[in-house]
Amino acid sequence: MKQSNSPFPRSVTFSADTGVIPDATAHYQKRLSDLRGLFLDSEALERRIREENDAVCYENYGVSYSQAEGDLFFGTTIIYPGKVGSEYHITRGHYHRKRNHAETYQALSGQGLVLLEREDGTTRTAELAPGKVTYIAPFWAHRSINTSDVPLVFLWTCSIEAGHDYEGLGSRGMRQVVVERNGVPSVEDRPPRPV
Amino acid sequence: MKQSNSPFPRSVTFSADTGVIPDATAHYQKRLSDLRGLFLDSEALERRIREENDAVCYENYGVSYSQAEGDLFFGTTIIYPGKVGSEYHITRGHYHRKRNHAETYQALSGQGLVLLEREDGTTRTAELAPGKVTYIAPFWAHRSINTSDVPLVFLWTCSIEAGHDYEGLGSRGMRQVVVERNGVPSVEDRPPRPV
Repeated sequence: MKQSNSPFPRSVTFSADTGVIPDATAHYQKRLSDLRGLFLDSEALERRIREENDAVCYENYGVSYSQAEGDLFFGTTIIYPGKVGSEYHITRGHYHRKRNHAETYQALSGQGLVLLEREDGTTRTAELAPGKVTYIAPFWAHRSINTSDVPLVFLWTCSIEAGHDYEGLGSRGMRQVVVERNGVPSVEDRPPRPV
Repeated sequence: MKQSNSPFPRSVTFSADTGVIPDATAHYQKRLSDLRGLFLDSEALERRIREENDAVCYENYGVSYSQAEGDLFFGTTIIYPGKVGSEYHITRGHYHRKRNHAETYQALSGQGLVLLEREDGTTRTAELAPGKVTYIAPFWAHRSINTSDVPLVFLWTCSIEAGHDYEGLGSRGMRQVVVERNGVPSVEDRPPRPV
């Protein structure tokens, strides 16, 4: 990228309540049926898909003006409240394709957690709440979870080069899950799959 | 940086009202006397330095956990309200040392403008206001201005590699200024220096 064909600065409006970015350059929705295989309780998932007309679990607005090295990519994610069985709504989760690239999240409304894990097996959780920057350090896969009963809306910012690798976590998904126990969120190791 | 010595994820608390980040890894203040030569009206500046005990014009909290390629640098800037003559309080302004690196700002309280210019002489302004991401495109020098009567607090995020080049703007400072005319902010070309 040269100065002469680089993008122009601008202000981009977002809604802290709904997460909508009217001038986003990309937008997608993930319905419950798009997340088959990721939740612990697949029967509960199929029931909700049938009974709730395959509701949207989360959506994403992205803004980018170039693909050039050094540029940033930002946007919002909105995770709607709900559970599949006892497990809170989640995003798919991914590593960055370029593993050494960090990301920041900043919750605008709602409350939640980020599950993080490294390829060496280390796990961590970090809080998503208004008034906090959630720092996704380099090399950590990350999945966001809405543990509140309103939409969890957060802004995210990363290098345009970071990229997404949805395969790196393999079919097992992440090592930990966030479930409701006695009305509060509990981070637990994923139980082994039934044989 | 290798996975094994890369930083850990975490949530970092900030105040949207004051901009304070208690766990910041860096912090500095710029007083009016640090900004000599940048305001149009140097007599008004010297008067305020004397009469207001060299008040703080702006301050900055930064958070970084590594200097490694791919990591991010984020923090807050707080510009206190006020004018030097008719010119609103400003930050020094800079290019990124790596010119092709972008940045995002997100105003948390107060209201203001970013003055932007490229080395080819093109100028732009962008708004700083809650509910907007202000996108500092690659190759643009940027200076922030508080046009409100409360502290302007904004979050900023960029690559740790972006760096600061305070010399690139030269002694003339930026090509434009933001002054109050009839009670409202006006973006104007900088008048030539008196000879």
